[in-house]
Amino acid sequence: MIDFPHIGDICRETPSKIVMLVVDGLGGLAHPATGRSELEAARLPNLDELAGRSACGLTDPVAPGITPGSGPGHMALFGYDPVRHLLGRGVLEAVGIGVELAGGAVAARGNFATVDSAGRLTDRRAGRIPTAQSAPLVEALDRIRAPGVELSALPVRDYRFVLVMRGSGLGAAVSGTDPQELGVPPLEARPLDDASAATAEAVNRFVRAAVEVLGGRETANSVLLRGFSKLPRLPSFGGVYRLNPAAVAAYPMYRGLARVVGMKVLETGQTFSEQLDTLEERFDEHDFFFLHYKPADAAGEDGDFDAKAARLEELDALVPRLLDLRPDALVVAGDHSTPAVLGGHSWHPAPLLVHSALTVGEGVDSFSERACGRGSLGRLPATSVMMLALAHAGKLVKFGP
Amino acid sequence: MIDFPHIGDICRETPSKIVMLVVDGLGGLAHPATGRSELEAARLPNLDELAGRSACGLTDPVAPGITPGSGPGHMALFGYDPVRHLLGRGVLEAVGIGVELAGGAVAARGNFATVDSAGRLTDRRAGRIPTAQSAPLVEALDRIRAPGVELSALPVRDYRFVLVMRGSGLGAAVSGTDPQELGVPPLEARPLDDASAATAEAVNRFVRAAVEVLGGRETANSVLLRGFSKLPRLPSFGGVYRLNPAAVAAYPMYRGLARVVGMKVLETGQTFSEQLDTLEERFDEHDFFFLHYKPADAAGEDGDFDAKAARLEELDALVPRLLDLRPDALVVAGDHSTPAVLGGHSWHPAPLLVHSALTVGEGVDSFSERACGRGSLGRLPATSVMMLALAHAGKLVKFGP
Repeated sequence: MIDFPHIGDICRETPSKIVMLVVDGLGGLAHPATGRSELEAARLPNLDELAGRSACGLTDPVAPGITPGSGPGHMALFGYDPVRHLLGRGVLEAVGIGVELAGGAVAARGNFATVDSAGRLTDRRAGRIPTAQSAPLVEALDRIRAPGVELSALPVRDYRFVLVMRGSGLGAAVSGTDPQELGVPPLEARPLDDASAATAEAVNRFVRAAVEVLGGRETANSVLLRGFSKLPRLPSFGGVYRLNPAAVAAYPMYRGLARVVGMKVLETGQTFSEQLDTLEERFDEHDFFFLHYKPADAAGEDGDFDAKAARLEELDALVPRLLDLRPDALVVAGDHSTPAVLGGHSWHPAPLLVHSALTVGEGVDSFSERACGRGSLGRLPATSVMMLALAHAGKLVKFGP
Repeated sequence: MIDFPHIGDICRETPSKIVMLVVDGLGGLAHPATGRSELEAARLPNLDELAGRSACGLTDPVAPGITPGSGPGHMALFGYDPVRHLLGRGVLEAVGIGVELAGGAVAARGNFATVDSAGRLTDRRAGRIPTAQSAPLVEALDRIRAPGVELSALPVRDYRFVLVMRGSGLGAAVSGTDPQELGVPPLEARPLDDASAATAEAVNRFVRAAVEVLGGRETANSVLLRGFSKLPRLPSFGGVYRLNPAAVAAYPMYRGLARVVGMKVLETGQTFSEQLDTLEERFDEHDFFFLHYKPADAAGEDGDFDAKAARLEELDALVPRLLDLRPDALVVAGDHSTPAVLGGHSWHPAPLLVHSALTVGEGVDSFSERACGRGSLGRLPATSVMMLALAHAGKLVKFGP
């Protein structure tokens, strides 16, 4: 964890409070017609004013040129090296639906798929069948048993499900069954080390039973499994930083990521306004809050420039409620960029703002990619953000005599 | 040492000369009433003019958010990774009073303390007794003997002293005796590895003898020891960079730090003007000079904004004498920031200026945190400063064919 090995020697408990607002997919790119990014096109009076009295910069979630998934993007902001502490695909899917993976459980991402009469793949996503159709199928898969291994199949959405395997000494080094092409049969799962032989055997037994259960169907008559992984052994966020941290996030994925690092996940509503209600109600109980805002990313993923700008304006309108809480350090950061012109995550650095009693402004007059690039924090790895937050909240003592 | 592993292949000896002026605690923060930092409030015509024809930037001594002590701050500017080459507290105290620690000596920081009749701590600093009172007590402690280990107790100042242990194969992995709280007795020193068993035994023997020696007193009737450490094995500054380096520093701590990396420490006076006399007199003898200016840091530590600005102005007035020497590369750097508004070291990056015949200016019109932040060097780790100094002095050849 952390690029700073002596972190345990310099963190101290204080009554001061930190709020880290993560705006999912915060960064964008200029619209070709206007030359202005989503942040520049949006009217953001509150964030602009806040940037004017904050320390600003740009964060690289992983490294220049690397486009992060949600896992690495958040792990970096939490201060964990996102390369060293990479969460597997199975783990991330499981965590995203609230599955508890402690105790060495192995998780895999599952797809319903369609095969022809000779068992050759004709559709790796089974026509993207909707949840209404897949849910009862997952229920049937969940009844499959294997000796010595406890199997659970859990619905995600549409054609996606999670397989969780529990048992003693199950390795996760198992090859996926998805051949990534059509016209060939699914692959056998193979153990990639000795400790994973029993896991691979249970996987193959599960797949055979699944094909039997689903056999009568024309579509969604097979399954593909990949991303076998376990929860990595992670240092606890609260333990390392000497914080009592809480997460206020509406989406299961981000609640799950917070849980993975040991934050307390607070019950909250689906809207950001409800999340702020929760923050206000529980503000006395914790000294660190991870507050997650999703809608900007979703609009960016849809490639809808105007919608992304509108979602940022909606966020901006609620910023005064955050400021009214008077956190000792307030961080506004992005887990990655999601430019609408790309319609997906990108590698571009994300704007960052750190506000505390010590920041009096540095001539940055708006909260945007370009303006933050002129800030005093310069361009820094996202793993540095927690150290800045702790420093601004007076929670770090001097390093070295 | 050095973030550049091939350093040995690219350094070459040349007649060119480098002066690195380290302004201790250089960086500051804006005064809440004016919005201007100490550097911005001070009148610095010479440094401003120099910045206007230099390459400028901001350096992180250790990492964003990390507040360094004097040791890490200087080690970084000398090009040594300050985390990997962390000097222990005992070593730094010993080095600061000019003690030679070569040959595996173990040093510890000592405090006089006061205990009650039951041996419980009532004051961990013995009322901060002045040097006049503590000096004869240290002399008495210096007479304590232990079999197989040569013990020396040396005065630092007020209630502080240094214990140095010499002998064959003494480990330094010994726990401190300071419980960091009152109402409990001092702790026994414990060996934290096998090689340190004899050290711990000698420490405990020293403490018992010290309590006997001091026993009749009402205050300062006990001692606390911590920060057991040895000089780390460091590559020689002159050897690695192929330099013949000298240090011109008034304060023992910085003379000691220069000695630790193998610089020749020149005799000099207590004022910066006297340090410049030394530099002028000895300028022909060396090709690298570490010149240390302390007063700005001291004023910042006192929380005296105006005094810090005044100390910077006093430095500025003497800058022409530096320029008259026409060093091939002149670096003005800070080991860390010491903002008067914080009254202590801080994590903020420090302004940096590198001047040579190759720097013609880049629109930076003053030597301050904000102005240097707009410079061409951007924000960089302090460990990069030596490489820039060497490059500007023509002392580095091409890397790779």
